[in-house]
Amino acid sequence: MNKKNGQTVIFEDPPVITGSGAVVGRKEGEGPLKKYFDYVTEDDKFGEDSWEKAESRFIIESSRTAVRASGLKLSDVDFVFCGDLLNQCGGSNYAMRELKIPFFGLYGACSTMAEGLSLGAMTVGGGFAKNVLAVTSSHFCSSERQFREPLGYGSTRPPTSQWTVTGSGAAVISESGNGIKIRSVTTGRVIDLGSRDANNMGAAMAPAALDTMLSHFEASKKDFSDYDLVVTGDLGFFGSKLLRDMLEERGYKCGDKLSDCGMMIFDRDKQDVHCGGSGCGCSASVLCSYILEKMKEGVLKRVLFEATGALMSTTLSQQGESIPGIAHAVELEV
Amino acid sequence: MNKKNGQTVIFEDPPVITGSGAVVGRKEGEGPLKKYFDYVTEDDKFGEDSWEKAESRFIIESSRTAVRASGLKLSDVDFVFCGDLLNQCGGSNYAMRELKIPFFGLYGACSTMAEGLSLGAMTVGGGFAKNVLAVTSSHFCSSERQFREPLGYGSTRPPTSQWTVTGSGAAVISESGNGIKIRSVTTGRVIDLGSRDANNMGAAMAPAALDTMLSHFEASKKDFSDYDLVVTGDLGFFGSKLLRDMLEERGYKCGDKLSDCGMMIFDRDKQDVHCGGSGCGCSASVLCSYILEKMKEGVLKRVLFEATGALMSTTLSQQGESIPGIAHAVELEV
Repeated sequence: MNKKNGQTVIFEDPPVITGSGAVVGRKEGEGPLKKYFDYVTEDDKFGEDSWEKAESRFIIESSRTAVRASGLKLSDVDFVFCGDLLNQCGGSNYAMRELKIPFFGLYGACSTMAEGLSLGAMTVGGGFAKNVLAVTSSHFCSSERQFREPLGYGSTRPPTSQWTVTGSGAAVISESGNGIKIRSVTTGRVIDLGSRDANNMGAAMAPAALDTMLSHFEASKKDFSDYDLVVTGDLGFFGSKLLRDMLEERGYKCGDKLSDCGMMIFDRDKQDVHCGGSGCGCSASVLCSYILEKMKEGVLKRVLFEATGALMSTTLSQQGESIPGIAHAVELEV
Repeated sequence: MNKKNGQTVIFEDPPVITGSGAVVGRKEGEGPLKKYFDYVTEDDKFGEDSWEKAESRFIIESSRTAVRASGLKLSDVDFVFCGDLLNQCGGSNYAMRELKIPFFGLYGACSTMAEGLSLGAMTVGGGFAKNVLAVTSSHFCSSERQFREPLGYGSTRPPTSQWTVTGSGAAVISESGNGIKIRSVTTGRVIDLGSRDANNMGAAMAPAALDTMLSHFEASKKDFSDYDLVVTGDLGFFGSKLLRDMLEERGYKCGDKLSDCGMMIFDRDKQDVHCGGSGCGCSASVLCSYILEKMKEGVLKRVLFEATGALMSTTLSQQGESIPGIAHAVELEV
């Protein structure tokens, strides 16, 4: 029997990630994880005529890579779970027009990869699908112009700002097969402690990251000693420090087991990204390259992947609202 | 055993809609379904200081109504599936900040209610949750200013335009109990035949409505003779005519069994809505009031509820793209 404990679903018969794909932009391909990505494009528009259309292209290419890696065809995929940061999730919708797989559109901001993995694992674990795909993307240029300033304005980036990752990660979840098992998923609640700074997403997301992580630890009776890596999505250096402080205040020993995809994808000293990477594509591309690869190698045996999302609305921010956060956690095991 | 046939999941042990709530604005409350809504607000801002914040209020109130109707408390709800039309789904995210239920954010445009019911039914049917909530909203004013023109510009509405419903519908899905059974769900693919007119959403969505409906009929071996009502979300008068023509071309006899929530919610002759209602809140509020009520009364015994979404992106439209459509179908039975 599958088990539900608090916000956590524990699978009796864990669904398996049987294939993954990570396709990124040039800057990401120059970072420390370059050798793990399936494809690095030199062209930020990826052969399309706009950044938004490029996002669809990233999704399509990472999806095709993941499906190929799992030994399947696109027509073997029962459902796809996909979302992105663009208004009306344009990147996802136009990608799915081409892929033609039955499609559940998601909006979880940068938590989307964990949201898709969670829902995908439940549809597979519930016997409703044999194979599903979870995929998401982001793009530095489309995000900057939508959420902050048009690039041409050349606005100054404060020290807490992060660099939206250009790229996409995709994973196929199957009912059986060789791969990484999804042992449990913990679904987050919206948490908002009043952060209002659109250039400090880490601070907006850290409380949600904490809430979901504590809920997971409590439900699964686990802590850092049970994991080789507990990795958040895109808190960046500042948000990660906040999370670590809040965990240590509560007696958790994070040590070097707590990390963040946003801190891993870029070289902070050499790549001028301030607090690190961000965006749906950040945690998705790091998971679907480096993390899953290290798990396959057996270097990492148990990983808690917790993607974090700042549910910032440009309209509500203009109306004086603060930025709600959310985080979903997925427990992975070799 | 649950069964998957094509795009359709057929539940062996059907999840049950045990409670629902529909809260709408003044114009909707003056229409033909007025006596079925749980609450009609005279104030389009619903006591808030913006239309966007009002959307959150609509979601909160319909959710509370649905949960109360099912005899539960908010804390009994395992997951909520929610999305809306606002950029970054602001209505949903800020509502969930208040409701604090583990939350899966969706973007399916006006197909969201069927998307939420489908995912909700699968999480309940898979044994991952006892009770979940599916909810969505829309607002005439926030939609007009986001997708078309600021209201103050007073732009002329062409005959094919529809009127975005101000309101929200919410439904609690439980593993057992008294209520309407969800017999099957059919998940749609993105279909785009090249429609480009932002004032003719019916034409953009009709091909997707057809695709999902044909897929459902084929998988379930059913047609109009098996249903008392086959109801689309918000094709409106023009889109519904297109769908009817396409079905009849293929030999289906729709008769008076094919209808559309967008045609039902307003009085076309008296309420000046051109082609009828639209928006996520249209199909959600009609389902969660009139349709479920008539099913409880036994007047309608079998209903196919197919919410339709125009996945229009304002940015991609400005880049010359056409409008993709999607539709998801939910088979309901007393």
